[in-house]
Amino acid sequence: MAKKQKIFKPKARIPRGLRDMQGSELAFQKLMLEKISGVYESYGFDALDTSAFEYADALGKFLPDDDRPNEGVFSFEDDDGQWLSMRYDLTAPLARFVAEHYDRLPKPFRRYQWGSVFRNEKPGPGRFRQFLQIDADTVGAGGSQADAEMCLMAADCMKTLGLSDNQFSVNINNRKILDAILAQVGLDAQAEDYDMRRLTILRALDKLDRLGIGGVADLLGDGRKDESGDYTKGAGLEKASISKLTDFVQTGRDTRADTLKALAEIIGCSEIGTAGLEELTLMDALMKDSDSIRFNPSVVRGLGYYTGPVFEIELNIETEDENGEIARFGSVGGGGRYDDLVKRFKGIEIPATGISIGVSRLAAALTLLGKADTKTMQDLVVLLVMDKTRLAETSELVKTLRNSGIRAEMYMGESGMKAQMRYADNRNARLVVIEGEDELAAGIVTLKDLQLGQQNAQNIKDNEEWRASEHAQTQVSRKDLAQKIKEILS
Amino acid sequence: MAKKQKIFKPKARIPRGLRDMQGSELAFQKLMLEKISGVYESYGFDALDTSAFEYADALGKFLPDDDRPNEGVFSFEDDDGQWLSMRYDLTAPLARFVAEHYDRLPKPFRRYQWGSVFRNEKPGPGRFRQFLQIDADTVGAGGSQADAEMCLMAADCMKTLGLSDNQFSVNINNRKILDAILAQVGLDAQAEDYDMRRLTILRALDKLDRLGIGGVADLLGDGRKDESGDYTKGAGLEKASISKLTDFVQTGRDTRADTLKALAEIIGCSEIGTAGLEELTLMDALMKDSDSIRFNPSVVRGLGYYTGPVFEIELNIETEDENGEIARFGSVGGGGRYDDLVKRFKGIEIPATGISIGVSRLAAALTLLGKADTKTMQDLVVLLVMDKTRLAETSELVKTLRNSGIRAEMYMGESGMKAQMRYADNRNARLVVIEGEDELAAGIVTLKDLQLGQQNAQNIKDNEEWRASEHAQTQVSRKDLAQKIKEILS
Repeated sequence: MAKKQKIFKPKARIPRGLRDMQGSELAFQKLMLEKISGVYESYGFDALDTSAFEYADALGKFLPDDDRPNEGVFSFEDDDGQWLSMRYDLTAPLARFVAEHYDRLPKPFRRYQWGSVFRNEKPGPGRFRQFLQIDADTVGAGGSQADAEMCLMAADCMKTLGLSDNQFSVNINNRKILDAILAQVGLDAQAEDYDMRRLTILRALDKLDRLGIGGVADLLGDGRKDESGDYTKGAGLEKASISKLTDFVQTGRDTRADTLKALAEIIGCSEIGTAGLEELTLMDALMKDSDSIRFNPSVVRGLGYYTGPVFEIELNIETEDENGEIARFGSVGGGGRYDDLVKRFKGIEIPATGISIGVSRLAAALTLLGKADTKTMQDLVVLLVMDKTRLAETSELVKTLRNSGIRAEMYMGESGMKAQMRYADNRNARLVVIEGEDELAAGIVTLKDLQLGQQNAQNIKDNEEWRASEHAQTQVSRKDLAQKIKEILS
Repeated sequence: MAKKQKIFKPKARIPRGLRDMQGSELAFQKLMLEKISGVYESYGFDALDTSAFEYADALGKFLPDDDRPNEGVFSFEDDDGQWLSMRYDLTAPLARFVAEHYDRLPKPFRRYQWGSVFRNEKPGPGRFRQFLQIDADTVGAGGSQADAEMCLMAADCMKTLGLSDNQFSVNINNRKILDAILAQVGLDAQAEDYDMRRLTILRALDKLDRLGIGGVADLLGDGRKDESGDYTKGAGLEKASISKLTDFVQTGRDTRADTLKALAEIIGCSEIGTAGLEELTLMDALMKDSDSIRFNPSVVRGLGYYTGPVFEIELNIETEDENGEIARFGSVGGGGRYDDLVKRFKGIEIPATGISIGVSRLAAALTLLGKADTKTMQDLVVLLVMDKTRLAETSELVKTLRNSGIRAEMYMGESGMKAQMRYADNRNARLVVIEGEDELAAGIVTLKDLQLGQQNAQNIKDNEEWRASEHAQTQVSRKDLAQKIKEILS
């Protein structure tokens, strides 16, 4: 039947908001993961891997409905009627894992994990619907030393990747201090709409980097219309409250000590504010000689679940935004304390803190800074196929090279000499091995150094010199080939 | 509002058919991926990474319908109305990638890739709905040398993982030979239902390992009822045809040369059969000294898209099946030639061949064989917290150790000495560092060797000897701590 139907020819295209990765970009990503994993391991964290999707209820988002099926999450119904959601971060699956295996785990439980996370959002420039995160969390530790460790570790990760102290900062704030300020502007923690109003305000403050003080003030007040004409409803605060909040987010001073002083003045005798300040003070004591770690009241982190210190890794580099305007590169990771996430399952509070680094975003930043160094793959040697009746012999020769630790392949296509050379060029092969009729008769092989050939070609001034470039080509006896190649490559 | 609602407490459980991975199991998986990647790279393959989902039409499965929404694939509708499917292998996404970027790619295109794939199937023992594959493919190469390379590479992977020649075999067959036999039993390649009948027969033959000759004969004939009472409709062949097919799948001989002879007799003058045999003959010539690579006419591979040589990596070890009966471990990977997969997009035939190794299954096999060796993580040193007012000093000490290359952490919980020791035990820490009041006064720290302590404890006969085990504990001046630890660990 299929034979008689009109053949459907699908268009080959990757789904919107996703991407493929190859070559040096992929190699650098791998190197980053290794380096960051190395730092996490050196701090005593153990590796964990969880499944790519979770039961929707365990992930802590609402079930999809007909109108807006996903709400930021990719979800689908399993054939037993249960809803599954792809993980949108690595923290929610960790909470599920800890709750599921609580009794057998060491306490505190310290794990690191890396993997893809998925967001069902509108894709944009540099905004993908699948991206890599690498996280470390300590679950079952309420003290501020666990938070301080996260910030120290974040700084070490940045240094391991080649950034100097002035190229990044780890900016710390505390949700308890934010809550103290919210109380000062009249939010009633006992009110029915408190959670919702609080989140609206926090999300507005979180946009300081992108919208500036004016934009944040609009979002705290009546609302804001963006350039596309989209209108976002505001938090509806009064002018004095808005000023109080915009003043607060600008309390950051040059040193951690000065910021602590400034915060102490604002907080006054608020109980929760004082608790937050004490946490920051203890963290400060544990972070001596770490000048890249700062206190910065403008750090909010959009997610609702943070309960204490929050932190953000920011790169101090400039880049062009979508409109070609210079903008700060911004955050490449962050985290904070979340004491309620495991409680959802267990009923009891299990304090936790963690950090998450956005690998793709950080890779983009390091590439901008020229720090994306990857020379991980071995040089490639391509053996041309000059005579198809001698495939077995050429194949044996490749095997000999490979057994000597050389990365080598026999050309696998069907084309002639010219196309084979073009192939070797496209593959960025370092050396080409040719065993034609003449060579065969003489018991030798010709070795072409493509890299040397390219350098010579760049220096060419006339035809005579071009001939001189022939020295990028040598001849060697078949049995000495591996040895000769090793000499050239080393 | 949320405050007044009854709080929903979700059950913490991983979705059915999925799993988490930790510790040595995860470390071994990582090591396997590195070793296999190393082999693929040494053969000249470059790394590629593609997205976890694809447009459903590009993946080549039918769109979900209401009754049976997924047909083996996890699918969901994007908010622009397009259907997305999670990748069920790494080959279909490769075909999409090659078709999308055909012009800029070297030809042939040689890539390797590893990643999770997803199957919407009924989970069972050892049967997961997400698992890791690591693949290598050559796209744009029609010659049998490319197929031979896949088999040689598969054998090298097994050897790199510690298997000896007699512990595995790479079994090769050819779809063209199978098609010749199908013609001999009367299947008409021009008939409307040819594709469907062919696939039904191939799937029946593919079950030889699991069902034996009798079960396969039932599936080729009227049908078969399994132990659970489920009935599978058969291919409806006549007795003589069934015998022909069951004879054929048992044509494998001790050497490749003998099998080629036996096959030549069966095939006779069939054009397509002869073409298949010639391919196997060329492959044979390229696989000298590779005794673990065999020709085996019982290899089918269930997937419809293979067009030439097909191969399967089989482990020659026995294991218990679900019912506690001894069974062969079976296939841990395989592949073959698929010349039509990219054609779906491009209209023109682009010959391709590839191999896929099932990492989780292979890991399970190597674990059974005692080959799952992982000593990749450094020893852990835990510094106990004896005095909470001295967190800063303990924290500095950890930092000193870490800077000397030691994997070290300060205990992050809130509990006392006993719980801290239990924690260090649970973490399999090698050393514990204690700086109590006495130590502090004397300017020293106590170092407990948990591994030595455990050994001693095993040798204990009476209390006196137990005291002797105290030598698992030493004291050292604070400034010499890093040096002393390095001595112990080396």
